[in-house]
Amino acid sequence: MNILVIHGPNLALLGTREPGVYGHTTLTQINERLMALAEELEVTVTCRQSDVEGELVTWIGSAGEDFDGLILNPAAYTHTSVALRDAISASGLPAVEVHLSNTHARESFRHVSLTAPVCKGQIQGMGPVGYELALRGLVTHLASTVTRKKDTES
Amino acid sequence: MNILVIHGPNLALLGTREPGVYGHTTLTQINERLMALAEELEVTVTCRQSDVEGELVTWIGSAGEDFDGLILNPAAYTHTSVALRDAISASGLPAVEVHLSNTHARESFRHVSLTAPVCKGQIQGMGPVGYELALRGLVTHLASTVTRKKDTES
Amino acid sequence: MNILVIHGPNLALLGTREPGVYGHTTLTQINERLMALAEELEVTVTCRQSDVEGELVTWIGSAGEDFDGLILNPAAYTHTSVALRDAISASGLPAVEVHLSNTHARESFRHVSLTAPVCKGQIQGMGPVGYELALRGLVTHLASTVTRKKDTES
Amino acid sequence: MNILVIHGPNLALLGTREPGVYGHTTLTQINERLMALAEELEVTVTCRQSDVEGELVTWIGSAGEDFDGLILNPAAYTHTSVALRDAISASGLPAVEVHLSNTHARESFRHVSLTAPVCKGQIQGMGPVGYELALRGLVTHLASTVTRKKDTES
Amino acid sequence: MNILVIHGPNLALLGTREPGVYGHTTLTQINERLMALAEELEVTVTCRQSDVEGELVTWIGSAGEDFDGLILNPAAYTHTSVALRDAISASGLPAVEVHLSNTHARESFRHVSLTAPVCKGQIQGMGPVGYELALRGLVTHLASTVTRKKDTES
Amino acid sequence: MNILVIHGPNLALLGTREPGVYGHTTLTQINERLMALAEELEVTVTCRQSDVEGELVTWIGSAGEDFDGLILNPAAYTHTSVALRDAISASGLPAVEVHLSNTHARESFRHVSLTAPVCKGQIQGMGPVGYELALRGLVTHLASTVTRKKDTES
Amino acid sequence: MNILVIHGPNLALLGTREPGVYGHTTLTQINERLMALAEELEVTVTCRQSDVEGELVTWIGSAGEDFDGLILNPAAYTHTSVALRDAISASGLPAVEVHLSNTHARESFRHVSLTAPVCKGQIQGMGPVGYELALRGLVTHLASTVTRKKDTES
Amino acid sequence: MNILVIHGPNLALLGTREPGVYGHTTLTQINERLMALAEELEVTVTCRQSDVEGELVTWIGSAGEDFDGLILNPAAYTHTSVALRDAISASGLPAVEVHLSNTHARESFRHVSLTAPVCKGQIQGMGPVGYELALRGLVTHLASTVTRKKDTES
Amino acid sequence: MNILVIHGPNLALLGTREPGVYGHTTLTQINERLMALAEELEVTVTCRQSDVEGELVTWIGSAGEDFDGLILNPAAYTHTSVALRDAISASGLPAVEVHLSNTHARESFRHVSLTAPVCKGQIQGMGPVGYELALRGLVTHLASTVTRKKDTES
Amino acid sequence: MNILVIHGPNLALLGTREPGVYGHTTLTQINERLMALAEELEVTVTCRQSDVEGELVTWIGSAGEDFDGLILNPAAYTHTSVALRDAISASGLPAVEVHLSNTHARESFRHVSLTAPVCKGQIQGMGPVGYELALRGLVTHLASTVTRKKDTES
Amino acid sequence: MNILVIHGPNLALLGTREPGVYGHTTLTQINERLMALAEELEVTVTCRQSDVEGELVTWIGSAGEDFDGLILNPAAYTHTSVALRDAISASGLPAVEVHLSNTHARESFRHVSLTAPVCKGQIQGMGPVGYELALRGLVTHLASTVTRKKDTES
Amino acid sequence: MNILVIHGPNLALLGTREPGVYGHTTLTQINERLMALAEELEVTVTCRQSDVEGELVTWIGSAGEDFDGLILNPAAYTHTSVALRDAISASGLPAVEVHLSNTHARESFRHVSLTAPVCKGQIQGMGPVGYELALRGLVTHLASTVTRKKDTES
Repeated sequence: MNILVIHGPNLALLGTREPGVYGHTTLTQINERLMALAEELEVTVTCRQSDVEGELVTWIGSAGEDFDGLILNPAAYTHTSVALRDAISASGLPAVEVHLSNTHARESFRHVSLTAPVCKGQIQGMGPVGYELALRGLVTHLASTVTRKKDTES
Repeated sequence: MNILVIHGPNLALLGTREPGVYGHTTLTQINERLMALAEELEVTVTCRQSDVEGELVTWIGSAGEDFDGLILNPAAYTHTSVALRDAISASGLPAVEVHLSNTHARESFRHVSLTAPVCKGQIQGMGPVGYELALRGLVTHLASTVTRKKDTES
Repeated sequence: MNILVIHGPNLALLGTREPGVYGHTTLTQINERLMALAEELEVTVTCRQSDVEGELVTWIGSAGEDFDGLILNPAAYTHTSVALRDAISASGLPAVEVHLSNTHARESFRHVSLTAPVCKGQIQGMGPVGYELALRGLVTHLASTVTRKKDTES
Repeated sequence: MNILVIHGPNLALLGTREPGVYGHTTLTQINERLMALAEELEVTVTCRQSDVEGELVTWIGSAGEDFDGLILNPAAYTHTSVALRDAISASGLPAVEVHLSNTHARESFRHVSLTAPVCKGQIQGMGPVGYELALRGLVTHLASTVTRKKDTES
Repeated sequence: MNILVIHGPNLALLGTREPGVYGHTTLTQINERLMALAEELEVTVTCRQSDVEGELVTWIGSAGEDFDGLILNPAAYTHTSVALRDAISASGLPAVEVHLSNTHARESFRHVSLTAPVCKGQIQGMGPVGYELALRGLVTHLASTVTRKKDTES
Repeated sequence: MNILVIHGPNLALLGTREPGVYGHTTLTQINERLMALAEELEVTVTCRQSDVEGELVTWIGSAGEDFDGLILNPAAYTHTSVALRDAISASGLPAVEVHLSNTHARESFRHVSLTAPVCKGQIQGMGPVGYELALRGLVTHLASTVTRKKDTES
Repeated sequence: MNILVIHGPNLALLGTREPGVYGHTTLTQINERLMALAEELEVTVTCRQSDVEGELVTWIGSAGEDFDGLILNPAAYTHTSVALRDAISASGLPAVEVHLSNTHARESFRHVSLTAPVCKGQIQGMGPVGYELALRGLVTHLASTVTRKKDTES
Repeated sequence: MNILVIHGPNLALLGTREPGVYGHTTLTQINERLMALAEELEVTVTCRQSDVEGELVTWIGSAGEDFDGLILNPAAYTHTSVALRDAISASGLPAVEVHLSNTHARESFRHVSLTAPVCKGQIQGMGPVGYELALRGLVTHLASTVTRKKDTES
Repeated sequence: MNILVIHGPNLALLGTREPGVYGHTTLTQINERLMALAEELEVTVTCRQSDVEGELVTWIGSAGEDFDGLILNPAAYTHTSVALRDAISASGLPAVEVHLSNTHARESFRHVSLTAPVCKGQIQGMGPVGYELALRGLVTHLASTVTRKKDTES
Repeated sequence: MNILVIHGPNLALLGTREPGVYGHTTLTQINERLMALAEELEVTVTCRQSDVEGELVTWIGSAGEDFDGLILNPAAYTHTSVALRDAISASGLPAVEVHLSNTHARESFRHVSLTAPVCKGQIQGMGPVGYELALRGLVTHLASTVTRKKDTES
Repeated sequence: MNILVIHGPNLALLGTREPGVYGHTTLTQINERLMALAEELEVTVTCRQSDVEGELVTWIGSAGEDFDGLILNPAAYTHTSVALRDAISASGLPAVEVHLSNTHARESFRHVSLTAPVCKGQIQGMGPVGYELALRGLVTHLASTVTRKKDTES
Repeated sequence: MNILVIHGPNLALLGTREPGVYGHTTLTQINERLMALAEELEVTVTCRQSDVEGELVTWIGSAGEDFDGLILNPAAYTHTSVALRDAISASGLPAVEVHLSNTHARESFRHVSLTAPVCKGQIQGMGPVGYELALRGLVTHLASTVTRKKDTES
């Protein structure tokens, strides 16, 4: 089982900028913890980050060939990108949207998510551990889908 | 560490009504799984359900005395209850909001949450496993808070 | 054929309060007339009233076991209760919404009905006779459904 | 007692077009059933249909001379015609608005009725039987008005 | 002269929860001060609190029989309850709405009051003393009404 | 100088319906007074009325050939007819919109005029005399235009 | 019969500023023409101009003592002044609102008039002659009112 | 293959009115060009125009019997006519909406199309040639549908 | 303790204009009653009225030097004046906003208050006695503030 | 005559992803068909695709030097990109916007086009053939412009 | 070159009130610095302040005679005054709007400027130095205009 | 003192495209003038331009290490980019937003700035000189901050 993890704009700065808001954990540390958990759950994860919307679109749109599921933190593009939404749909993959902070407790333009309606679920406000919860949830979901498929086939 | 789990209106019908939408798991099964996970994580959970908004308000408003954290699925009251929001604030407890389905993919009046802004985080669309992710996330959060308090005190 | 009739908040006061707006007929008289018409149509009706939203939710949510159809006047909760809407859906019963007055001719916050979209139909502005029209319409509908089912089965 | 029944645009196609949505009953059948019920209730009904908004306006505006009440299904004009609204007011007649389908469960532009606020009541979602319920309700209303007038005069 | 004082959801927690926002005065103290002032003004007050919307509706809807006026703090239900509004209208009593804090200086969803338009007046932001001002104002109003009635009768 | 006067839907009923709102003057009387004033001002007026939007559109759209100016009371179509607006533009004639009542003091959907932005001016709330004011104003405007044209030509 | 004519902010500049928009006629010329017409109609007019909203409020609020009717061009205050609206109501006088240009054909914030709903009528887009039309209309109205009063008194 | 071409209100004036906006081509010329292209593509076209909304409704609603596809320019009714929308749905025909000008570059009330959602496609801003493009596109679409049907049948 | 009382536009007309709406009490009587109550409470009050927004701004903006608190009825400026709001903030004084009528029961443009968010509290709908309640409330508030200051200093 | 064809985000996936929605034609096939048609019409076309908004902006902004017209399918950026709109304006080229599906029949956030107002025209819902229709239309337009220029120049 | 500098409501209090928000610089100091810079740039500045909207309107409306440009800080009137906007247009002068604070970072009702659309430019959030930047910018603009005029004339 | 100057999408075309709107100055000339002024003010400026939103995000997000302040013209991204806003916040630098034209006088979607609320100030409508005013203002601001820091430290 291969999971693609996508980090959106400004997330490369995690841990070094505005720690009062986003905490002291760096993006490298988040990725390492995900790798460790992946090993424990016997799946593989591939992590990528970009500030460029179109690059994220290209990665996600073609992810269906190499991956079984998607974890993504679209960051600021959550609220403005119809292109990311279309890419998620095109990928045909189950996706879990993650936000470090609780977007409902921030400015009103962050209350709308263009990408969430085409995702399976959303986890927000739990800090870096949110990615790990997303991985656990996504793996559970993929496992049950596989099981059901087998049941139907047999 | 004591966690209060609150289930809102119509959730007593889980597993027996509209399984096409909400799945086959009953509320009792969800509670049992949470109990099992709680034992594993060495915390205790107390589960309650009510269809009456005011009863939920009373439970949550006075939860600060006996509990350390709150997991709640306000169901339909998520979108209409200022009273629940005020009760969560009054409790002074960190709370995680859980939804079985992805509210962003449903009717537009379900896209607004009055309770989420006063919660620590929100998990939705992950099905029954969402409650377990919430418990893991909340326990991690409470543990780190305790640690930090001790550091400050010593 | 068993029909559940649900009267929402403030309706216990009918006939004694604001007769200029709501007329002189009491809730007891409405229920008695419904009983008489039910006898004529050879069905049974059960009438309940509550001011508590959650109590209405519990009654409706579990009505699928004992009843074949639902007549409800959600009164003020019509415009604010997502919980009642979810309970009607969960019941799986055909429902007819009744309002004594014409809500379109009153304040604008009464123009929106959260419950009507999950009902079969709606009758308003006809006064107490509206309940009787609803019973006739619902019984006609249930009869035709039964007929069609029999046709399919045979 | 004379009742005018007005059918608005596209209703001449009933029963032959989109039976999945509007059923198999034709407009002629609806009118015949209304005639039969009218005989039973000892009143007379006159039925008219037009696709032309202005023709409907002319019929309704001058109906006060020959009729005692109005049953109308303004169809698509419900949501856009201020002219029909003004014609109903001008007629001075009690009117009941009928819709075959439940407009609250359809597109959002069908949730607004410009004509309902000047009608006595509204019945929707009950299918062709809705016209018969409207006739019963309107006759009951007219009878009670006559009674009250007599009481006052005597 | 008998006055009913109604306290809405979460107000039982006054003085013990979030004193930074709501102050140190408890609900018991507020009620005692009102009793003392009532004695001074030679009227009687009856105080009740509930978190359940429907219970508040029942109390207010039937208050017209035993009371001459109403003081109510609907708290969170101020902004969401059409049922409370209808109950106040049904009671036929002059009512004064009280809020401890200044709702205009809080979140925008607290700027709308569904209940205020059917009250005589509204007092907000004055803290616990707001109840006493409401009692003084209501008694003055009731006294002048009585006087005017007597003038008309004699 | 030839002026076309257009009366929209429901105006044929003037003087006989709702005199409390629209007064006792009939449409025939209005037209006769306009004729008399036209004679005094040495112009000719032609008056037409229709309830059919499309007929009004045809009259106005082709008015440029036989007329020098337009006075119109679009009545209910004022607020909904883009077709009338386009017809006025197509006619190339200066137009004055007349309303018997003050539309700003009526329902909010009457506050918007789709036709006024393509008219030279608008007169409302002046009762039947409003038509005469419109005729005076329009003739003054046409006279000054002619004068200016002559100045430019000479 | 005494008529008060009120000119609002920026109107002292008429004829000298932006003649392309507002024409070459000065405010003095408008007032002189009104005086001449008043003489012809055997009434008196008093003309005042101010840029200060509060000064206009004071003049209008106390106009009921010395005047029988009001013609006012509130100019920019039309769209923003609740105070002028209240002053017109307080005066108890019939008022006609005049605008030189057609406000419906300008920026959208000029489409709303706060003062028009409490006026008898409104004339716009007719240029300086609009004031004269207003005077004719207002005098006609006042004459008919007087006649009716006399009829009632005798 | 028979195609019905419907021209809406004001289009009979094409080429003679406002050529600066709509060009010099007349409706007759547009129809002749469509006929010529139809011959080339070996289909037949029937062209009709009316200013009356209800007449357009009647034509389109019954077009399913004699035609295979629909090209329509609803002109001003595009933005206001729910009746036309319902007629297109009722016809069961694939339809292409044509506008001579680019409605998105005009007034904001022209940005909304009530008819486009029930059409197969929309072509705008291309001038008279837009009709020819629509005919080509519609014929291509109908041809491919026929082919697919044949494949399924054989 | 010195209190400044500010009355806004049109309030000089109180008692003489529209007594049906605003009562028979004059502004002079209101001020005299406030003086009497001030003497009883051992504070001084200074009362001012103006129709000019800028004059009110000047008085309030510089009130911090001579006064300890502010009672103001901004009347119509409540809903339109950002300048008054800024002046209240600049004064640094605790303010109580008073309205004679219940603004929530009037036109919707009166439901918004620009000044209330920067006041301590608001009292409305209680008639002239509302000013006296405001004075009692403000004096209580100022007294408790002084006490607390002393406690902190000692 | 040189035409630039721009394909926006996710369009490289055409024909391989979601064929149920977007059909089986690939982007390469669309481009080849356009090339063939271009040869027939004796013009040249250059086709480019990118998922990166800024790259599209750079291509379009500088297209004025090498191209005579623009065909673009901005896909998801249609609804969110002011930058693309500014680039089209800056290019000075006539542009035709193409959408494979009918955006009016999809989610409401797809009903707004930021780019269409600065284009000459728009074609949508016609599938891949829409590009060919756009090319025909654009070439016709450019030819007529050239002719008119020549007429003016000679 | 003569520049008029206009300071709006509450600005006379600068430096003495709310220094935390508006800084310690007084209005006198701002004016003195502007005088000094004016001398350096070889122009003259005239500074005026008023809290009265109408007084500002009068000053600006007649400024075209004595001044070449306008710098204005409309303060609170920025968001509410159509009259100031009309006065700026009437003056015919190029204007630069200045705000000490960044209005975009304050309450949402401060995000709209009614005056900015008729100004040449706007400078905000730069504190007292914003006035000096405005003077530099305005003088540069006026100098270039003069130069261009001379070029055209020669 | 090092200042980063960022130019957004389409700005590379300055001076060569649409000079009627944006003037004849090229981006190179703007940068050269800024360099010259920087030398005069004894600071250094670094200028960058990109059409790619993500590239701008990367530059700004990491600017805190090498620069002391930021001048940016986000052009079209001003109105749509939450990502740029987050990058400015992450940089921790004081920023001044510059627009060549007056956005308040253009289309309404340009009236909203997502980036301005996290900037220190904004300068618009002053043409190319706006950048120089921004540099002067930013340097003044940075100088005063340094001074204040020194005062605090000593």
